[in-house]
Amino acid sequence: MTEPAGEFELIARLATIFGTPSDGLGIGDDAATWPAAGDTVAVATTDMLVEGIHFRLDWTSAADLGWKALAVNLSDLAAMGARPGRALVSVAVDATRRGLVVEVARGLKSLADRTGTQVVGGDTVRSPGPLVINVALVGEADHARLLRRDAARVGDLVGVTGTLGAASAGLALLTERGPHLEAALDPLVAALHRPVPRLAAGAILARLGVRCAIDISDGLASETRHLARASGVGVEIDVDRLPLAPAAVQALGSQRAIAGALSGGEDYELLFTFDPGLLDALAAALGIDGGMTVVGTVTGRVKGGTARFVQAGREIDLRETGYVAF
Amino acid sequence: MTEPAGEFELIARLATIFGTPSDGLGIGDDAATWPAAGDTVAVATTDMLVEGIHFRLDWTSAADLGWKALAVNLSDLAAMGARPGRALVSVAVDATRRGLVVEVARGLKSLADRTGTQVVGGDTVRSPGPLVINVALVGEADHARLLRRDAARVGDLVGVTGTLGAASAGLALLTERGPHLEAALDPLVAALHRPVPRLAAGAILARLGVRCAIDISDGLASETRHLARASGVGVEIDVDRLPLAPAAVQALGSQRAIAGALSGGEDYELLFTFDPGLLDALAAALGIDGGMTVVGTVTGRVKGGTARFVQAGREIDLRETGYVAF
Repeated sequence: MTEPAGEFELIARLATIFGTPSDGLGIGDDAATWPAAGDTVAVATTDMLVEGIHFRLDWTSAADLGWKALAVNLSDLAAMGARPGRALVSVAVDATRRGLVVEVARGLKSLADRTGTQVVGGDTVRSPGPLVINVALVGEADHARLLRRDAARVGDLVGVTGTLGAASAGLALLTERGPHLEAALDPLVAALHRPVPRLAAGAILARLGVRCAIDISDGLASETRHLARASGVGVEIDVDRLPLAPAAVQALGSQRAIAGALSGGEDYELLFTFDPGLLDALAAALGIDGGMTVVGTVTGRVKGGTARFVQAGREIDLRETGYVAF
Repeated sequence: MTEPAGEFELIARLATIFGTPSDGLGIGDDAATWPAAGDTVAVATTDMLVEGIHFRLDWTSAADLGWKALAVNLSDLAAMGARPGRALVSVAVDATRRGLVVEVARGLKSLADRTGTQVVGGDTVRSPGPLVINVALVGEADHARLLRRDAARVGDLVGVTGTLGAASAGLALLTERGPHLEAALDPLVAALHRPVPRLAAGAILARLGVRCAIDISDGLASETRHLARASGVGVEIDVDRLPLAPAAVQALGSQRAIAGALSGGEDYELLFTFDPGLLDALAAALGIDGGMTVVGTVTGRVKGGTARFVQAGREIDLRETGYVAF
């Protein structure tokens, strides 16, 4: 989830305290891994959602909240090419709203059933404060096929699944116009409240030989930088190629839709890099889970990594164009 | 953690929604299990602690909070005879107190190092409300040696590790006298804020052939009932045999110390049942981790289970004696 400035510094300090696991994946990655049965690895992730920060119960139903709390974790597994999975679910809520927990559970269970996730335990506690839900998820992946953010290679193409900007458009519309939106905008609100994690796409990427992926829930711009930094490469993204959600463009115009795709966040899509020889096979196979669009290239080895953004053939500064607000 | 009335009803409804895993362990047990490498099972648990409900930061340090958040989960693993383990840690805190997260992490890490637990990931998020910490923990156990709450057999003795009532005495003293207590009471406050999970004891129980155990963090009385119900047996506890913490008796008197042991909660000790032939071996082996005391017997098969409490040779009603408040 999107976090205020200082998050990366805090994560860095925590990483120093807790150390980096021996396999090199740990705090700051989409998910942690460790050896499991046979040639598989366990893949684990956790996300906490807080009322008033990550959701508002006058904008989203408790059932949709349960769905989303699981979805954001499943997206982390998808980005690793992992399969679900067992989930542990904790909810804190004040005594007068305990009935909400049942609705949260129903929504979560509907996505669990759809994805083959088993909810094996949890904790429900009182709180005098906002509703808080935490999901911890343990899945499984084939060790040799794990998708990682540090595996981009020079010459790779950069692809993204699905379309971008719908969820952040939904959030912008709720913020500006309140919860009673016209029915035509429902798909944008649904993209925000009931995202569908790209588990099938992640599995296809892993199976077809892709090795580098990341989920872009914090926005394409910052996630591209994470991937570039982790891999030590330069990545160039062609902004004109971004697969903007048509409903977002229609509702907000292309300038705001591009900004939403680059920095609005909440798109639970996968960004990945791959050998150009895989393009046809990937494009064909990913048709079953949102399709894919080539949006850029890995241009060279760059210490520390760089992400460049190009529009109409010229490099742009995302802040000057207003695509990223600071 | 202790919860208000309605917790069991809520858990029952959630269990209906999520279903019971095929191995019969699931929501409501100390931890969930599923098959892992070889003859082992993964053992997973989660606990959420909320400021103002489970802790107060004017009574406990952030470092001790981190320690305890891991300890309560490790105690669930100990009660299953499981080994740590990988932990995922989530913290929600307001922006002005983000520095606390580093202290929480340090305290948690100190217990992680002591117990061989690896912190592999987590989430830190903003919240306008109380500090919330969630730990999800995945450990491992030998499948054939798993400790379960439903495995008590008629004729078993009932044992408990360590001493009882220190932590709840510490909580009572903090509540009644505030945080500036005389140094002689430090051990009671430490028992509350830095409990040491009985991982070694749990491993010894599993290795020596014990099959039935539960942790008694909600108090001996209710946990005995859980064990009796799950096993379908009658359990008789001799209140005169409870290993009361001497400092608790000294500070509060024996009546209140007994009440603390039976219903005060916060004792991260193990209650277990075992064949009488194991007594000498258990007593000798458990000397390295708090020792043990025989406190009762499994008297017969009883549908739905019963827990009876005896004092001076006569059955007592825990409410009439004031040992349990309703």
